[in-house]
Amino acid sequence: MKSAYDSCIQHCLTCHQSCFQHAMTHCLESGGPHVAPTHFRTMMNCGDLCQTAARFMMSASPHATSLCQVCADMCSECAECCEAIGDMSACVEACRRCAESCRQMAA
Amino acid sequence: MKSAYDSCIQHCLTCHQSCFQHAMTHCLESGGPHVAPTHFRTMMNCGDLCQTAARFMMSASPHATSLCQVCADMCSECAECCEAIGDMSACVEACRRCAESCRQMAA
Amino acid sequence: MKSAYDSCIQHCLTCHQSCFQHAMTHCLESGGPHVAPTHFRTMMNCGDLCQTAARFMMSASPHATSLCQVCADMCSECAECCEAIGDMSACVEACRRCAESCRQMAA
Amino acid sequence: MKSAYDSCIQHCLTCHQSCFQHAMTHCLESGGPHVAPTHFRTMMNCGDLCQTAARFMMSASPHATSLCQVCADMCSECAECCEAIGDMSACVEACRRCAESCRQMAA
Repeated sequence: MKSAYDSCIQHCLTCHQSCFQHAMTHCLESGGPHVAPTHFRTMMNCGDLCQTAARFMMSASPHATSLCQVCADMCSECAECCEAIGDMSACVEACRRCAESCRQMAA
Repeated sequence: MKSAYDSCIQHCLTCHQSCFQHAMTHCLESGGPHVAPTHFRTMMNCGDLCQTAARFMMSASPHATSLCQVCADMCSECAECCEAIGDMSACVEACRRCAESCRQMAA
Repeated sequence: MKSAYDSCIQHCLTCHQSCFQHAMTHCLESGGPHVAPTHFRTMMNCGDLCQTAARFMMSASPHATSLCQVCADMCSECAECCEAIGDMSACVEACRRCAESCRQMAA
Repeated sequence: MKSAYDSCIQHCLTCHQSCFQHAMTHCLESGGPHVAPTHFRTMMNCGDLCQTAARFMMSASPHATSLCQVCADMCSECAECCEAIGDMSACVEACRRCAESCRQMAA
């Protein structure tokens, strides 16, 4: 259990970095569909939520489970959104792994 | 609707400030039950989540509702926790108002 | 002194909200120069830094002064950037007030 | 240059995790000097600033350098503070590495 828990913290931190960094560099520089409101907001919100979910797990919060449930949905949506645009495979992968890991925590 | 939405953003931002500021000054300086792990974590996690919920609403995110549901529960718990310790009425009130406002958003 | 300090916390929190909310709604929906990398990053970074500076002041941190210095520069730059684009007067004003307030703290 | 830059982002993210996680678990559970106002605030503020500095670097912000300067000082202070208390060697090391890396960026 401990290992899956620690692993979920890492997936959330990695996904935060991937979403925020891609949004602020790749997406802004590419423009077009990369800065469409829905896509860009999804990236930013996903990054923010992953970070907060990580901080809840780092605090051993009893609410971490509920947050991981919302985070899993957010990450799945972000993965789909990035895949539809293309040219964002690293971010798709980070989101998928985080979604799966959060879903395990929430179960 | 617009007004209740904007009002919830403000309640979340105010609750973030109240929880974080009280934790970092009043609680740390008072010591004793104020720095008990459960109480202190609840304060910090509540502040973090209120901030993230506010940012989701500011982004007009479709996931804001799910986050407000978790945030309402977190704020209610924080209000009870602060009330049980005593000498934290301002924080109790900020948490109660935020919980009620988030619950309306989640409905 | 106390009053200028509390006022700076509020200016930072207001500026965080203004920058983040405008970026995630007005800028993304307007497109064009509003999502130019430099402008958009300035908005996001300014919001992040204002929030962190506010949290340092809320914690009565001895490093709040150094952070307010960087924050004042960031806010001034964001105000100029928003003014050059036009149609963002509320954000220009929030940044100007925050810059002035942070400069007082840093003095 | 690219490598030192990416490395500094990682040091900041790792230091954020170390400070926040140790504060919310080890320090709160140990009590005594671990929850002394100065020590605990230093831990929390250091974590917050490392995270913000990382986000500035991830955004390729021209203000990242100024922030890394403040972050280097904050991390050095946190390392000393943790070392003085003892039983926090992992956090001391994360802070030292981050301070050194930030100082290189600021140079």
